[in-house]
Amino acid sequence: MRDTSFGVLTGHDVETRFVKAGTVIFHQGDEAQEMFVIKSGEVRIQLGNRSLAELSADSIFGEMALIDKEPRSATAVAITDVELVPVSERQFLFLVGQTPYFALKVMRVLAQRLRATSKTFG
Amino acid sequence: MRDTSFGVLTGHDVETRFVKAGTVIFHQGDEAQEMFVIKSGEVRIQLGNRSLAELSADSIFGEMALIDKEPRSATAVAITDVELVPVSERQFLFLVGQTPYFALKVMRVLAQRLRATSKTFG
Repeated sequence: MRDTSFGVLTGHDVETRFVKAGTVIFHQGDEAQEMFVIKSGEVRIQLGNRSLAELSADSIFGEMALIDKEPRSATAVAITDVELVPVSERQFLFLVGQTPYFALKVMRVLAQRLRATSKTFG
Repeated sequence: MRDTSFGVLTGHDVETRFVKAGTVIFHQGDEAQEMFVIKSGEVRIQLGNRSLAELSADSIFGEMALIDKEPRSATAVAITDVELVPVSERQFLFLVGQTPYFALKVMRVLAQRLRATSKTFG
């Protein structure tokens, strides 16, 4: 398992957003302006009633919509109370441009999800 | 549809590899040292007998194994005679580091495949 922790983006001086357990963070089909790093808590990514992933601290989600500028491909729900670090499209592009390691980590997340999808359905 | 053409990597002065129609380019489970850009021809990505994608000129494939260093996740077969540009892991990491646009394009390819998978199975 390659490093896919984004903990470096959840330091003390970043602005965070608090979300109560059970809250929908975004819906499939929503327009998107940001991705998120989970600082604490757990988030479920789902399509209808089917759970695609359950994510915990230092994971990212919502990156797909920043990459291809399509609407949200799935719905994200807070399983527990959650603290999130929002990353705007502008910050995302800056990180990709300035820190190749960030770009590689985002690619690893996407590759892991593709492999997981193939295993689930293969 | 965002730009996912990698034609810029298939210029006149690059080394290419010719593959006859019907040849397996790599098998699922193989160790991987390179990804490929299709210069001409068509390539099928398949899992067992199930076709995951049919790719043509300026598309990439085999990038997953460079990103996460796991064995090949699927098998690649030349549908027609194919001319390929191999990209080594070292070249790949150089491109990611030097050209953020390349990194974003690779991310777009992965995001498209994830969306396609969700649609196929959703």
